[in-house]
Amino acid sequence: MTEMQLGERLIVNCLPLTEAERQSFLEASGDVRQIFLADPSRRGTMLWQADVPHDIRGHATAVIGNIEVDTLPDFINLEWLQTWSAGVDRYLNSGAFPPDAVLTSASGAYGQTVAEHMFAMLWALMKNLPGYRDQQRAHEWNDLGRAATLDGATVVILGTGDLGSHFAHLVKGCGAHTLGVRRDPSKSADGIDAMYGFDALDVLLTKADVVACFLPSSADTHHLIDLHRLELLRDGAILLNGGRGDVLDERSLPSQLHRLRGVGLDVTEAEPLPDDSPLWNEPNCLITPHVAGGYHLEATERRIIDIARENVRRYAAGEPLRNVMRH
Amino acid sequence: MTEMQLGERLIVNCLPLTEAERQSFLEASGDVRQIFLADPSRRGTMLWQADVPHDIRGHATAVIGNIEVDTLPDFINLEWLQTWSAGVDRYLNSGAFPPDAVLTSASGAYGQTVAEHMFAMLWALMKNLPGYRDQQRAHEWNDLGRAATLDGATVVILGTGDLGSHFAHLVKGCGAHTLGVRRDPSKSADGIDAMYGFDALDVLLTKADVVACFLPSSADTHHLIDLHRLELLRDGAILLNGGRGDVLDERSLPSQLHRLRGVGLDVTEAEPLPDDSPLWNEPNCLITPHVAGGYHLEATERRIIDIARENVRRYAAGEPLRNVMRH
Repeated sequence: MTEMQLGERLIVNCLPLTEAERQSFLEASGDVRQIFLADPSRRGTMLWQADVPHDIRGHATAVIGNIEVDTLPDFINLEWLQTWSAGVDRYLNSGAFPPDAVLTSASGAYGQTVAEHMFAMLWALMKNLPGYRDQQRAHEWNDLGRAATLDGATVVILGTGDLGSHFAHLVKGCGAHTLGVRRDPSKSADGIDAMYGFDALDVLLTKADVVACFLPSSADTHHLIDLHRLELLRDGAILLNGGRGDVLDERSLPSQLHRLRGVGLDVTEAEPLPDDSPLWNEPNCLITPHVAGGYHLEATERRIIDIARENVRRYAAGEPLRNVMRH
Repeated sequence: MTEMQLGERLIVNCLPLTEAERQSFLEASGDVRQIFLADPSRRGTMLWQADVPHDIRGHATAVIGNIEVDTLPDFINLEWLQTWSAGVDRYLNSGAFPPDAVLTSASGAYGQTVAEHMFAMLWALMKNLPGYRDQQRAHEWNDLGRAATLDGATVVILGTGDLGSHFAHLVKGCGAHTLGVRRDPSKSADGIDAMYGFDALDVLLTKADVVACFLPSSADTHHLIDLHRLELLRDGAILLNGGRGDVLDERSLPSQLHRLRGVGLDVTEAEPLPDDSPLWNEPNCLITPHVAGGYHLEATERRIIDIARENVRRYAAGEPLRNVMRH
């Protein structure tokens, strides 16, 4: 990096790109210098890493990638960090993020993958597929009785951002009525038929055929779904958690599972779920290991890349960036 | 039945009805006498039976219910049989169905339940849920890698009647492109973007992300999906069978399963699937015991009842019946 000039802008791009994508990023950055550090073979592995060598860190004015928080002090000229995650709590809470730098996220890239995974879990529970899979393993061929449908069902969605809104679209397309819950119910969301505040939650739970949680972890949401609220659910209802595990008080679940059709959890309070958790063995509890998000769909990778490239273009052109989480 | 008069019309109704539904059938039949034989507790049990006592059979001019084929000769005054099944092969092929009687089916009642079940199996396979369920049983928390999506996927649907058309609607609502295959491709079907004849099948199989079969059993469809056609499928494709088991040559499947994302079978060549079938243990083969149809949804029961009641009204009024399968 000896040829770097002081004050020159440098974009350090850690995305695992195809050659064509790399060219499109070079076009987007124009006269601003951009270097590419990622191993393209990381694409599709769900193991993206942003390892910026020590000698480059001090020259980078912009980084695309989730660099380690403890390396932030090395980026003394950082003007802009574009993450490939939707959440940026680790940077905001670190106290080490440069006060004058802009932080932009990949918010909007993960709605499809998370919503689709929870939608798949919902359909599996409605049609008794976990039980049929268990039977298959035992070579058993028995009818497990009634199934459920989304046609005419009432689906209550907690958290109506990118994830909840995408999920609402999917279930609405199958004939469901969608009721959203968000902090400011005056704000509508695509796919939500009617929006409510959290003060309406208890009443909504008594009307729901399906409750789907897409809430972040916070003091307000911790154990929001506790024993009292589980008891409000109808017999035969389905509960899904695709947000953060501690929104649901897991200890309260076993006493209620027998009367619910099923519970689908992609997140749990402790991850991995501890080996002694009773939830592992509950027949109508379907558990997946926090895989709804991440890079499980090519479309997610493409959206992250599209967000980053547009911001590279804006950075080079001196225009305001998109998806700004802190300025 | 001693009070019966010769020549008087008598509807023998074997549907398990609620009291309100029974009243609505009595209104529909008007002056025509109607008797109800079913045990209402059969509702929702998936075990509907039409047991007409010997002394009534000869008086019945109309029967609603799937009476045993070997009792047909006793129904000497039968003018009309309304089945609660969609298929009526057993009556048409029996040679015992009265030549002057009308046969009507419940065609149209089962599309939702079959299509939704196969849709659930599809989503489960796309999101690796059978593998995650297997892991759950072993208390394992591992990422199983890439998932698939219907957004932008090409779905080839074999058989585009009530079942295939309903399935097409569901996948289209999730962003899929739907290609239908039917004997007469000049006939369109709801939910199908483009229709082809069976002569196009081999080419379509090479383009499909998902192939869904909803074909009846016949000489033309027996082993339609054989080793050659399985080999035409793309790596990572998904195959579903929700029609009849013998459309797929099961012996050819194990050699191809490793390169497919998954196969979802609700029907098999022999049912129950024999205990020594290698398919039971295939990790990416999801098997359910012929439960897509039947009375797994309340909506199916309501549709059958609606079809039958409308035909009772027409029978009493002397109007042409609907869903006529043979006249």
